[in-house]
Amino acid sequence: MNLFEQNHPFDAATRLTEESGNYHGRTSKCYANMIGPFGGVTAATLLRAAMNHPARQGEPVALTVNYAAPLAEGDFVIKARPARTNRSTQHWMIELTQDDEVIITGTAVFANRRKTWSSTEAQFPSVPTANEVESMPAEGRPAWVNNYDIRIIQGGLSLPSQPKTEDTADSVTIQWIRDEPRRPMDFLSLTAICDAFFPRIFVRRKQVVPIGTVSLTVYFHIDSAELNAHADQEVLGHARALQFHDGFFDQTAEIWTPEGKLLATTSQIVYYKE
Amino acid sequence: MNLFEQNHPFDAATRLTEESGNYHGRTSKCYANMIGPFGGVTAATLLRAAMNHPARQGEPVALTVNYAAPLAEGDFVIKARPARTNRSTQHWMIELTQDDEVIITGTAVFANRRKTWSSTEAQFPSVPTANEVESMPAEGRPAWVNNYDIRIIQGGLSLPSQPKTEDTADSVTIQWIRDEPRRPMDFLSLTAICDAFFPRIFVRRKQVVPIGTVSLTVYFHIDSAELNAHADQEVLGHARALQFHDGFFDQTAEIWTPEGKLLATTSQIVYYKE
Repeated sequence: MNLFEQNHPFDAATRLTEESGNYHGRTSKCYANMIGPFGGVTAATLLRAAMNHPARQGEPVALTVNYAAPLAEGDFVIKARPARTNRSTQHWMIELTQDDEVIITGTAVFANRRKTWSSTEAQFPSVPTANEVESMPAEGRPAWVNNYDIRIIQGGLSLPSQPKTEDTADSVTIQWIRDEPRRPMDFLSLTAICDAFFPRIFVRRKQVVPIGTVSLTVYFHIDSAELNAHADQEVLGHARALQFHDGFFDQTAEIWTPEGKLLATTSQIVYYKE
Repeated sequence: MNLFEQNHPFDAATRLTEESGNYHGRTSKCYANMIGPFGGVTAATLLRAAMNHPARQGEPVALTVNYAAPLAEGDFVIKARPARTNRSTQHWMIELTQDDEVIITGTAVFANRRKTWSSTEAQFPSVPTANEVESMPAEGRPAWVNNYDIRIIQGGLSLPSQPKTEDTADSVTIQWIRDEPRRPMDFLSLTAICDAFFPRIFVRRKQVVPIGTVSLTVYFHIDSAELNAHADQEVLGHARALQFHDGFFDQTAEIWTPEGKLLATTSQIVYYKE
């Protein structure tokens, strides 16, 4: 039995079957992006391989996924190897291949958390509730957008069909987001949501240019009990770029519950052409 | 010939010799930390293995290093494998072992940069010049601190021997830092400097508690020509924590030239006990 399995398109998209220690999956048209599948679902699928592994101990604390080559529509194989298991932490090396070619590499750290002195320094932004913000229409967007309810408070996109307008002053986006239909949040869907911001350069330059995430890192700041308490509520994503320079820009973001609990912080570096 | 080799304790600490495709190194007492070597030098040594590799193409864009187990004083072996080489990017899997046990894992992305539209959104903080700030004394600090000139503008430490004072309001640190003696900056020393902030929890709580970096990520925003232009000047590091929660806190930081060029952004997640 797979403890993480739910009846949602997200679960079909990240489904893996084990065979001789390898995990076999297949890309989902529901989560297609402009080229290949939505990278957030791919990252979640790599994490699922480690989570499903019989040697797994603890819950995710850190995940890094490197997008080495375009993932083609169809079947893939994931190898997840516990490189080191300690008393309270476990380190994973993960590799996704198609036809024996490496497409994605990754590492993950799992741990057993203990209650300690805790404090949140990041500021929950001042925002209207999700009910007060309109859902973004999915028309003209890649397929994966249909599987999310996204309500953008600041830093949206113009439609690809609209003419390019002036650059905005910054690339900050603040958005409410949840799975559509609703799905109780787990580490997998949280991972995907960390990558569910439109590329910062689209926001900043109000135009679509060729881009591709090169490396994505997620730090999980909660355990599964805290995710269970959150259930299927929306989360607030707050993202910005610090630097666009000679073909690569970064993105850092926080993912918050409506009550102001910080679920995850994330960063990525993205190739762009212009 | 090793293009990166310079005559500095840092070069001795990160020196590797190649043997049958593996890279052999040895920890340096000059860069010892409270337990084991300073993690920034270890991260730089992993990067050096990929940089020295004959198959290497391009320059570093992203590096993630996972500290899976304590690195013991003495010899170690690094295996660096180009998992995927594309036209303009290359993806590496890296593993450091001692006695065939995995101690550190990592991934790196190399790329050839091209000139594009560029923009820095992060704000260079308002600070005095390095000459206007006093160097931090290295007494009472781990050995590695002797190899840096650190001038803390905000968010310093009390000495371990001093009594615990009240928590500060935040864990922000702003510091000038450079190698001591001066050393022209390269990707290796920049990597180490990304980890050369004192742990955020020491700053926030004004006390030393057991900690250990679990995973470190560095995004490089410049190429070697820009590093060569920077030469051996000091850099400004600006770090903060977003979240301390149940045994793990994060740190994000920017590394700037005195002229306000953003060299690198970095994040890490750190285990703590309290």
